[in-house]
Amino acid sequence: MQVKAAVAMEAGKPLRIESVELEGPKVGEVLVEIKATGICHTDAFTLSGADPEGLFPAILGHEGAGVVVEVGPEVTSVKPGDHVIPLYTPECRQCEYCLSRKTNLCQAIRATQGRGVMPDGTSRFSLGGEPLYHYMGTSTFSNFTVLPEIAVAKIRKDAPFDKVCYIGCGVTTGVGAVIYTAKVEPGANVVVFGLGGIGLNVIQGCRMVGADKIIGVDTNPAKKVLAEKFGMTHFVNPKAVEGDLVPYLVELTKGGADYSFECIGNVDVMRQALECCHKGWGVSVIIGVAGAGQEIRTRPFQLVTGRVWKGSAFGGARGRTDVPKIVDWYMEGKINIDDLITHVLPLNEINQAFDLMHEGKSIRTVVTF
Amino acid sequence: MQVKAAVAMEAGKPLRIESVELEGPKVGEVLVEIKATGICHTDAFTLSGADPEGLFPAILGHEGAGVVVEVGPEVTSVKPGDHVIPLYTPECRQCEYCLSRKTNLCQAIRATQGRGVMPDGTSRFSLGGEPLYHYMGTSTFSNFTVLPEIAVAKIRKDAPFDKVCYIGCGVTTGVGAVIYTAKVEPGANVVVFGLGGIGLNVIQGCRMVGADKIIGVDTNPAKKVLAEKFGMTHFVNPKAVEGDLVPYLVELTKGGADYSFECIGNVDVMRQALECCHKGWGVSVIIGVAGAGQEIRTRPFQLVTGRVWKGSAFGGARGRTDVPKIVDWYMEGKINIDDLITHVLPLNEINQAFDLMHEGKSIRTVVTF
Repeated sequence: MQVKAAVAMEAGKPLRIESVELEGPKVGEVLVEIKATGICHTDAFTLSGADPEGLFPAILGHEGAGVVVEVGPEVTSVKPGDHVIPLYTPECRQCEYCLSRKTNLCQAIRATQGRGVMPDGTSRFSLGGEPLYHYMGTSTFSNFTVLPEIAVAKIRKDAPFDKVCYIGCGVTTGVGAVIYTAKVEPGANVVVFGLGGIGLNVIQGCRMVGADKIIGVDTNPAKKVLAEKFGMTHFVNPKAVEGDLVPYLVELTKGGADYSFECIGNVDVMRQALECCHKGWGVSVIIGVAGAGQEIRTRPFQLVTGRVWKGSAFGGARGRTDVPKIVDWYMEGKINIDDLITHVLPLNEINQAFDLMHEGKSIRTVVTF
Repeated sequence: MQVKAAVAMEAGKPLRIESVELEGPKVGEVLVEIKATGICHTDAFTLSGADPEGLFPAILGHEGAGVVVEVGPEVTSVKPGDHVIPLYTPECRQCEYCLSRKTNLCQAIRATQGRGVMPDGTSRFSLGGEPLYHYMGTSTFSNFTVLPEIAVAKIRKDAPFDKVCYIGCGVTTGVGAVIYTAKVEPGANVVVFGLGGIGLNVIQGCRMVGADKIIGVDTNPAKKVLAEKFGMTHFVNPKAVEGDLVPYLVELTKGGADYSFECIGNVDVMRQALECCHKGWGVSVIIGVAGAGQEIRTRPFQLVTGRVWKGSAFGGARGRTDVPKIVDWYMEGKINIDDLITHVLPLNEINQAFDLMHEGKSIRTVVTF
């Protein structure tokens, strides 16, 4: 079938809106009509060419929502008409990782996903007879896409696509890091480094679970107002702190953060995030993605005296199990997505979304089909 | 009263056996007759002068066992005749740390302990009218010592002092790191870096909880035989591995260690210990003490993909609650201490213990009184 997609023909160039050929779903696959997709920094990172694993030409996009229109043979968990969120972290419920009960990093289709193809080793997309690569197993910058059954989360039908698409990446990454990775408990004191989209979602996750102090750290004071709306109780601008930031935060938290989250991708901030944690039990969670080859460092004494250093990918959330719950939390008003979606564009204006992001004007831009 | 003690008069000099004046226990304190004490690397570290917080003249020693002979006012938890192990990590059961349920690092008497005095700010020991410092709140290199009530663990009376004194530090540090810090579960694959006394105790802790592969890593192949006796299933000599050690260990564990333990204090080994852990859930525990100012480092990707970096002090064990259980485990044959105590000396030969340690000839030397 012919579908309408934004194609990344080569690194560093704008996406091109094209009519693309899409093959139907094969065994264990589903065809999904994408109704809305967010544009995330990871899409921009790949499009820029900075990602050494980036493949071109490809159909990017990994933060979508839509409706199942056709299922391939042997598909049992979804049917046409089901509303779904595509999952770049699938959940097969069969592999060593899924069965470990310790991680959400299902490995069932990792190798083919990394090579930009479906599990059978081929692509469903082509343009002028030449295959286009899939991206993160999702390729949501297209009004139709094909996904493995294990890479879609079935969600309630009353949830608006142009909001819950954001749960496909950013919301889950932030809220999930609080709930599934750190397991923040009521009354905890938390420090959040970086008040972009991920940081705001961490903040509202902390509010949802009843954290006490929720301290946001950002060098841009303009971020204070929205962060407070999401539950931030204290704002700290490192530029306005006299002396070192870490002892300032330890003082502010009366001994250190019970949990801290790095939502920037800066290895020096990652160290601050660890070292502002409470002796004995403080847990620091790295969410931000650092530049290639960069390293974190600290004195081991920080760990021997009880601090824990860990990371979070897709918020530690299991895609098919936990994503539908987060949709419910949104529909129940426990989390706010509406105020994070600052721009909505049609597909043929998708390149504007990258401009808005690079200019720092958007939190999340959503493209609707 | 006059007691017989080995006194560290100044850094870098042998201990001097002296008749020392000891005041009786004050409020909340107990007088303990020390029956046996181990000599640990930490004693040697302080005696060498390398510890910037070391105080002289002092009575060192922190790995003892003995009998309560007198209790001061308001002491309720022990009485004369009780057998006890002194605790350099006390357990007050009242402070924020004890009540957190998340750490064993009781802070009740930390400040005075660090200054070499009892909680009232004074020393009980003196020599020729000049006060001697206490050490780690325990000062077990003396046939009598005074301790705060919260710094003694009451143990069963049939346990031999010259064995269970080792539970006062080394055994608990190793076995406890497995059980209380890492919480290793049956079937886990474990890698232990360094097969000295701590490493051997980590190994037997892993065996006790039913770990599967227990891999010991040491550059000295002479350590293999004893480590196997304690439960090591595979020995790896990094010098004999072709290529990098980390991928070798990942291969040997079929994907990485579920848990790893660094028992050396080498920051480069700490990195290997983290990076040989299993993607998704591997936990690396730092036990060894690194040199002043040294730093650990890694790429944050190691954490974002699910590895956890933490540390352990006194094995994460609560002194009064958990140390008596470890004594029981020894008495029940679940752990082996006898084969770790390689030398027994009288107090007036205590300096030989440091020589044996520096020459690598002992695992643990115990002084009996």
